[in-house]
Amino acid sequence: MLNLPSKSLEDAVEQLSNLPGIGRKSALRLALYILKEDELFAKDLATAIASLKLNVKFCQKCHNISDEDLCNICASPSRDDSVVCVVENMSDVLAIESTGAYKGLYHVLNGVISPLQGITPNDLTIEHLIDRVHQEDINEVIFALNASLDGDTTAFFIRQQLEAITTLKLTNIARGIPVGGALEYADELTLGRSIAERTDL
Amino acid sequence: MLNLPSKSLEDAVEQLSNLPGIGRKSALRLALYILKEDELFAKDLATAIASLKLNVKFCQKCHNISDEDLCNICASPSRDDSVVCVVENMSDVLAIESTGAYKGLYHVLNGVISPLQGITPNDLTIEHLIDRVHQEDINEVIFALNASLDGDTTAFFIRQQLEAITTLKLTNIARGIPVGGALEYADELTLGRSIAERTDL
Repeated sequence: MLNLPSKSLEDAVEQLSNLPGIGRKSALRLALYILKEDELFAKDLATAIASLKLNVKFCQKCHNISDEDLCNICASPSRDDSVVCVVENMSDVLAIESTGAYKGLYHVLNGVISPLQGITPNDLTIEHLIDRVHQEDINEVIFALNASLDGDTTAFFIRQQLEAITTLKLTNIARGIPVGGALEYADELTLGRSIAERTDL
Repeated sequence: MLNLPSKSLEDAVEQLSNLPGIGRKSALRLALYILKEDELFAKDLATAIASLKLNVKFCQKCHNISDEDLCNICASPSRDDSVVCVVENMSDVLAIESTGAYKGLYHVLNGVISPLQGITPNDLTIEHLIDRVHQEDINEVIFALNASLDGDTTAFFIRQQLEAITTLKLTNIARGIPVGGALEYADELTLGRSIAERTDL
């Protein structure tokens, strides 16, 4: 593609185009924008990116992003600590939090079991989840994993280790037609599942 | 919107969403991606952004981006230094260079005259352009400014100061129907201009 007239510009474009969803052309537009702005802009941006990786910690309880040892959700006295929602990664926590519909705690697996990508249970925080269920006073574990083969495998793997605890309720988030979604545009799997798992009116 | 669980994450999202075309949601996706990658990724990206603003110089002749005092276009002996193409900013240079159709030099104005935005001729490199035309052996000045009111004003302002030089040819890039563009979808202004400025077959 374009032969850039400056090594520093070339470097910046290359680094920026490593980000997801940003191609070389968008990266060039971003770099030229940074060049146009004053020096403080580039400095603030660079500092924020560098300190992101250095300063962000992970909650020792649920593995969510946190500035402290315990994240604000785990530390909050107003949350229901008898329910744990198992999610794949931290963006899922943010997505569920933005609904305001959930008041329990979380457990971030940091991925799902994937034989193809070589991700085994030991690469995830599954063992810690099992420990939590045994040590904490947890009544329900909600699985909110993506409806993929790997997601289902992971839920199955965890369930196997938890179903021996008879007092524990294991649930899955509801699958079905999205609120406001038209039936005629839904895929067969979703529509079929929405009928099989119909609820009382 | 979302209440982020970490100050550093919040900072990074805020800085990233200052970039053009990146909203808060995209910024969060980028920040989470940076968090997932190893430390070197964040460090390299931050360094590239910071050094972009610090290291990039501007060509003393044409004001294009450069690592040296003279950019590689002005310094190249194979370019035709009797033709100068006047453009608004450095991304226009890259756009024209990518065509491979132009072998002359450039002059980057760093903007156009805009009374509304308070940009006067003194904020631009117009005076330097006039000096260049007088001092260098230039036969033709091509105006490749955007077809806006401000672009036209700027071209008019520069022309006024150059038309006294009778040996100098002043030209404008051709406006018309894009190559491969369908006539029925062209706007009236472009189509009208393409007829008024028709060329011999």
